Parts: sequence; structure tokens; C-alpha cells
Amino acid sequence: MEIDSTTCEHGLMGRLFHWAKALSGKIRTNMEVLIERIMKLARDDPRRVVHSFKVALALTFVSLIYYVRPLYDGFGVAGIWAVLTVVVIFEFTVGGTLYKGLNRGIATFSAGGLGLGAIYIASHLGEAEPVFLGFMVFLLAAVSTFIRFFPHIKRRYDYGVLIFILTFSMVAVSGSRVEKIIELANQRLVTIIIGGAACMVVSIFLCPVWAGEDLHKLVALNMEKLANFLEGFGGEYFKLDEEESSGEAGVCSKDKLLFLNGYKSVLNSKASEESLANLAWWEPGHGRFRFSHPWKQYLETGGLIRQCACHIEALSGHLNTDIEVQSEFHKRIAEPCMKVCSESGKALKELASSLRAMKRPSSFSAHIQNCKAAIADLRAALEASSPDSANLVEMIPSIAVGSLLCDISKCVEKISESIHELSDKANFESAKSTQSSHIIHRGSVKPLTGDTRHGNDDNYVHVVVINVNSTSSGASLP
Amino acid sequence: MEIDSTTCEHGLMGRLFHWAKALSGKIRTNMEVLIERIMKLARDDPRRVVHSFKVALALTFVSLIYYVRPLYDGFGVAGIWAVLTVVVIFEFTVGGTLYKGLNRGIATFSAGGLGLGAIYIASHLGEAEPVFLGFMVFLLAAVSTFIRFFPHIKRRYDYGVLIFILTFSMVAVSGSRVEKIIELANQRLVTIIIGGAACMVVSIFLCPVWAGEDLHKLVALNMEKLANFLEGFGGEYFKLDEEESSGEAGVCSKDKLLFLNGYKSVLNSKASEESLANLAWWEPGHGRFRFSHPWKQYLETGGLIRQCACHIEALSGHLNTDIEVQSEFHKRIAEPCMKVCSESGKALKELASSLRAMKRPSSFSAHIQNCKAAIADLRAALEASSPDSANLVEMIPSIAVGSLLCDISKCVEKISESIHELSDKANFESAKSTQSSHIIHRGSVKPLTGDTRHGNDDNYVHVVVINVNSTSSGASLP
Repeated sequence: MEIDSTTCEHGLMGRLFHWAKALSGKIRTNMEVLIERIMKLARDDPRRVVHSFKVALALTFVSLIYYVRPLYDGFGVAGIWAVLTVVVIFEFTVGGTLYKGLNRGIATFSAGGLGLGAIYIASHLGEAEPVFLGFMVFLLAAVSTFIRFFPHIKRRYDYGVLIFILTFSMVAVSGSRVEKIIELANQRLVTIIIGGAACMVVSIFLCPVWAGEDLHKLVALNMEKLANFLEGFGGEYFKLDEEESSGEAGVCSKDKLLFLNGYKSVLNSKASEESLANLAWWEPGHGRFRFSHPWKQYLETGGLIRQCACHIEALSGHLNTDIEVQSEFHKRIAEPCMKVCSESGKALKELASSLRAMKRPSSFSAHIQNCKAAIADLRAALEASSPDSANLVEMIPSIAVGSLLCDISKCVEKISESIHELSDKANFESAKSTQSSHIIHRGSVKPLTGDTRHGNDDNYVHVVVINVNSTSSGASLP
Repeated sequence: MEIDSTTCEHGLMGRLFHWAKALSGKIRTNMEVLIERIMKLARDDPRRVVHSFKVALALTFVSLIYYVRPLYDGFGVAGIWAVLTVVVIFEFTVGGTLYKGLNRGIATFSAGGLGLGAIYIASHLGEAEPVFLGFMVFLLAAVSTFIRFFPHIKRRYDYGVLIFILTFSMVAVSGSRVEKIIELANQRLVTIIIGGAACMVVSIFLCPVWAGEDLHKLVALNMEKLANFLEGFGGEYFKLDEEESSGEAGVCSKDKLLFLNGYKSVLNSKASEESLANLAWWEPGHGRFRFSHPWKQYLETGGLIRQCACHIEALSGHLNTDIEVQSEFHKRIAEPCMKVCSESGKALKELASSLRAMKRPSSFSAHIQNCKAAIADLRAALEASSPDSANLVEMIPSIAVGSLLCDISKCVEKISESIHELSDKANFESAKSTQSSHIIHRGSVKPLTGDTRHGNDDNYVHVVVINVNSTSSGASLP
């Protein structure tokens, strides 16, 4: 930014003007980027904006305790605790707010009582009073801090234990000095209850964000992400012409990148699923979720979905290898493999949509049966091929893909079983088709009842399945 | 527990005695279980016990401010903030304590200043004072709450923003009533600094737990877990007799279960790695870690390790399938497959141990070269086999395992590259052998310099590798 001494007055002004212009342009660009990021954050989840206003509302409400004189005279300085309570316990989800609010309330109450007891004992000890109180603080702090390491406590009561240490120390420490401790404790408790109640009311009755519902949707979304990959993979890997490929594979290749990378987030979903399930535990019944909704079962289903995602990760490695010459064998197994892909994808989508609708999925899934039939076809194609040793090496990637697809179809079956268990535990409504499929199940030989909601009925392989109960039979390559 | 009316006095006493005995036995069992769990928690990580005492110590220390009268007269009721500060900011790791302490300090200071400014303006507004202050609280609470959703802010400054809202609201709300606000703010700030300083000093100088070191060890441990699986898998899958299998596979089958399931925790390590890396960012240089240690690179390496774990998850599915008849082909590929397993396992262990020792791993790993040679052998075994169509079906699982092992060996190479990048960025010391291998690299044809630290040199395949730079050449099945 050194100013050239030969520059004339006019040139200097000109330069300054240019600098100012460039600077303002830069600021404007930065502002635009910032605004764009803010808008994106709000667009991605508009509940974030609503949440911000909810916090502000609750906070402004409890400030009234201070601003309105009659209330202030009643509560005194303790009113500040209502403000503090709102700021620290208001969380994004109802479950989070209840978790923190209830933990804080109970911990404050019990630790306050214990603290008063300690002060009462200490007041009879004369000179030893500070030593006794100091020892109590040391002991309880050490024990409580250690207790927080228990996994069960950490999951459900971590915040409560923290507030317990906090309140006990504050009461024990300030109690030895401040007179009228009972009155103060009473005021403090009342204001904390006011703050907590304000949070809970606003959180529950004003556009509530339920952790349980988020978990429910997350599990369904994760299944859809895997389904999108599977539906896209077939067409992408076997790179057949549009005419050769069945319709759906061609459609999927449009949003290729999005589809083929969407599953990656599923791999790391464990932490968020667990935290949502923990928070959902605190939530009262709401909408179609009862109080004792089987949130744990979602975690099990989520684990199976992640296992399936792992196999998909292994499968996706095959997308990047170029196959210059498509061997005869590669072409021969293409059709059954693509069938397995699209049918497991459809089965997952069917499960996801029945989960979203909270309907019991049909106990006889056409897609899973079609998938098994496709695996049988794949096996037949393998048996029919007569490789010599030279093209065995060429066949290896295709065989590996076939084997992985087979594992994936098994995973999909397991996911389906887990979703069925979930719908039993949660008493999901039966879908309309269940009635008829139950009747069909009584026989041991059953024709396939087409589930035509997903279109392309012409692609259906009509199979006769004997003994559906042993679901894994015929679904595995040797 | 209904008492039978025909029971005589003696019988009743006898029953009561038995009940009491049973009850005391139950209580004793429960206590024993509890004590066992506490002992396990402490044994698993003795730093937990130390941490509990550290918190208690810091808390008792700041309580002194209250108990010692001269100090109390100086600080007044504000001393309670020192206690509060210690309880909420003392975290398990140094990074966590610094993160919370610095965030709290800076947020309290800036929000306090802003709050005082707001009060000053409000005091000139007369009647509109509470309206103005209420509006300011509403506005700042809404904006700050929204800001917490930015991923970058959430990672580094979440707690600071929370304390900012808290402090501003408290100052703005109480400031409109309490006189001598500046003096109070001053006292409060001093006590918070005392509390924060006590935490930081105890946290850093008394048995410190460094988040960065934990991250460093976690990454090394995860590699070792994968290595254990790989070393155990070969012997387990190919179920060869002790005589046939190479020594190390036989040794590994001892702690089979532990080894073969250890990798599962690696799959879900992302959340803990990220949180440790975020906390490590706050830590000053310590021991062999400088202030600007490349923590981000650990996350990248961790991602590659998880990718490898995913392939291993797919591989582990093959352990559960029973192979009744071991085909000729299965036996033929057993040796190269087991070689790939054990060599990639050893390569990972070598990388882990060099990471632990913070040494630059030798840029020419014998194990990775052996692994490539084994894959070439596997390929040769495939080419030599002449399957007819019947046993092609039998061969599929073995081929799938071979293909997965090949993917895994590629993953191991990527991990190795990432660890090399890490040692460059972190300026790890060179290991002694590097010097010689650098010299060897100048030629284009290099004999293998045996790294015999891991024993069984007799098993080494001596290969001649041409053009080491294109590391992936020859490492992949077609």
C-alpha cells in the first residue's frame, strides 16, 4: 500500500477512489457470502430460525420478573436465576429441554436440601465449621465427578450430577455467611421453577421439535439413502445402454453424484442416533408416538442399516475401477445383478415409506422375493458359464460385486425383520394389504401378490415361494 | 410374601430370619456388583479417579475465598461465581478446560461490556428504558442462538456464545435495578478469573490429560485393532492345521473373540476423533506435540482407517459361513490370502508403532511390498486354476474374500501414505533405517531391505520392485 511519491494529487485521489471502491466491493462480496451462508442455514432447517425466536421469547418473558416492580419486590435478586435457567436449559428439541430442565430441577432441590443439612450440622461444630463444610464439598465433588463416568449416568443424568455439585457447593459455601438462607433458597427455587416452566411451555407448545420424531425420520432417511445408491449403482456399474437397461436405472443416473455419495453420511450416523434416542426417552407422548415408544429398537435398526452401508462402501470401490472390455460373463450377470440392486433398493424404499407412514410393512414383500429370485438367476448364470483360466481373472471383479450384492440383500432382509419387530413393539397400524397376505400365508405354496405401488409391474418376476418363514433360504450364493 | 396363618411362632421367626438372611445376601451381592463396576471403571482408565480428585481440589481451593474472612470481605457475594466457574468449566482434558475457560472468560468480558453500554444508553431513555433493554435482550438472544447453528461456531465457540447471551441478559436485566453495577461487575470478573485460573493450573500441572495425546493414541490403537483382525482372520477363515499355517496365524487364534470383534469400535470412532481434535486445537504445546501440531491430518488418517474397517466388516461376514468341503481352489489360494492378511496386519502394526513412537515410518515398508507380492501370487494362483462351471459356484466365496483382501491392501497403502504425510507435517524424527532406504531409492531396481523387528524373517518373500513411486501398480487384482 506504499504511495508512489511521483503520483500527482489527482492520481492519488484516483487511487484512493479505486482502493475505496475495491474495498467496498470486497466487503460487499464478503457480506453476500455471509448472507448466502445464513440463508442456506435457515433454508436447510427453518426450525433453526423458529428456535432462535423461541429462546428470545422465553428469555424476554422471564426478564419481566425483573422489569415489573411488584414481581421484583417479591423475588429480589434471585430473579436473575430465572434468566440463567432459561439460557442454559433451552435446547433445540423438546427432549433436550426436558432432560436439562428436569435434571436441573431435581438436582437443585436435592442438593439444596443436602446443603442445608450440612450447614445445620456445621453450625453445631463451632470452630470446625469451615473444615467440615470444606471436607463435605471435597468429598461430594470427588464422588459426583467420578459418578459422571458411568455410561448410564452419563447418558441420562450427566447434567443433573453437574448441577448437584454446583448447587451443593454454592449452598454450603455461601450458607456459612449469608443469613436468612432458607428464604433465599426458597426464592431461588421458585425463580428456577418459573424459568424452567417458561422453557418447557414454549418448547412444547410453540412449534415443538421432537427428538423422537427426528430419530424416526433419520432412520427412514438413511434407508432411502441406501436405496438411492442401490438403484443408481446397477446402471452405473454395468454401464448398459439406455435401451438395454431397465427404466429405473436410467432415471437414477441423473443426480448421480448426489445419489452415489448420499450413503456416506449413514456410516457416521451412530452418534446422532444415540443422542436423539436418549433425548426422545424424556419426551411425553406426542402425535402418533406414545410415551413408551420403542426408541431402543430404532438404534438396533440403525445398526443394521449402518452394517448395510458398510457393504455398500465396499461395493462403491468397484465403481471407480474402469472396465475397458466388458467380458461375456460381465454382460451375462448384468441383468440379475441389476435386478438385485433395484429390488433391494425398492424393498428399502418400501420399508422407509411404511416407517414414515407408521404403517406395519406388508409381511410378504414382493421386492424381497424378487430379489431372492434374482439371486437365484445370478447363481444359474454362474453355473451356466464355462470359464477357462484366462478369463477367470477377468471375471473376478464381477464375481466380487455379485457376492457383495448377495450380502447386501441379506442385510436388507435383516433390516426388514428389524422394522417388523419395530412395528410390533410400537403397535403400528396394519397396512391394507396385510389382511390378504395373512390369508395367503396359511398355504405353503403362495403365488406372489404384486405390490404395484412403485410402478413397472412388467418387470416383476413371478416366483413361487415355498416356506416363507425361513427367509434366508435361497437368498445366498453358496 | 404372604405369611401362612398356620405357621407357628418359631416358624415365623425362622422365616423372618431366612428373609433377613436372603435380603442381606441380596444387598451384599448388589453391593459387590456395584463395587466391581466401580473398580472396573477405575481400572479401565485410572485417570478418571485422578480427575475426580482434581475437581474436588480446585473446588475446595476456591471455597477458601469464602471461608477466609479477609478474602470474603474483599469480594463479597461475588465469590460464589468462582465456585460456579470451577464446576462448569473443569473438564476431563486440558483442551476441554481451556476451551470452556477461555470461551467463558472472553464471552463474560465482552458481553459484560456490551451490557453496560446498553444500560448507559437505556438510562437516558427515561420511560422507554425497560422496553429498550427488553428489546436488546430479545434481539441478541435470537441472533446468538442462531449463530450457534453455524458448524464452525458450534465446533469452537458454542460455549462462548451461550455465556455471551447469559451474561448480557443478566447484566442488562439486573443492571436496571442494582446500583454500583461497575463495582459488582469488577468483583464478578475477578472471581471468575480466579476460578478459571484455578481450573487451568490444576488441569495443566497436576497429571494433565491431553486431548491431543488421546487422539494420537486413539488413531494408533485403531490401526492396531484392524491389524489384530487381519492377523487373526487368515487362520480363522482358512482353518488350516497348525503345521500348515504360518506361525503368526496360530498364535492369534488364542484371543480370537477379542481380536475378531475389536475392529467394530473403529467403525464408530468418528465422533470421538472429531471432538478430541477440536479440543486438541486449544491445547498449548506439550511433550513432543508442538502448538501447531497437524490435528486435522489425524482426522484424515482416521477416515481412511474407518474405510478400511468397512471393508473388514464386509470380510467378517465370510467368517460365519460354514465351508464344509474345502475345495482344491480354496486350498490353493489359502497361502497367498493368508500372506496378504498377515502382511497388511504387520504393515498396520508397523505404522501404529512408528506413530506411537512419533518416528517417521520407513518410506519403504517391507510388509507392504510383501503384501503386493502375495497379491501377485494370488493372481498367479487364479490364472493357474482351470475351473469347470460346477466348481465355479464353489469358488465364489473364496474369490470374494480374495477381492476384499485386495481392497484392504489398497486401503492399507492409503493409510501408509496418510501417516507419511502426517509425519512430514508434524516433523517426526526419522527412524534409523530411513537413511539407508533413501539411498536405496536412488536406483530403480532395489533389493528388499528386511525390517526384521517383527520376527519370522524366514517367511519373507524377497521381491525385486521396479519403480516404487507408482505404489498401486501390481497391488490390484484386475
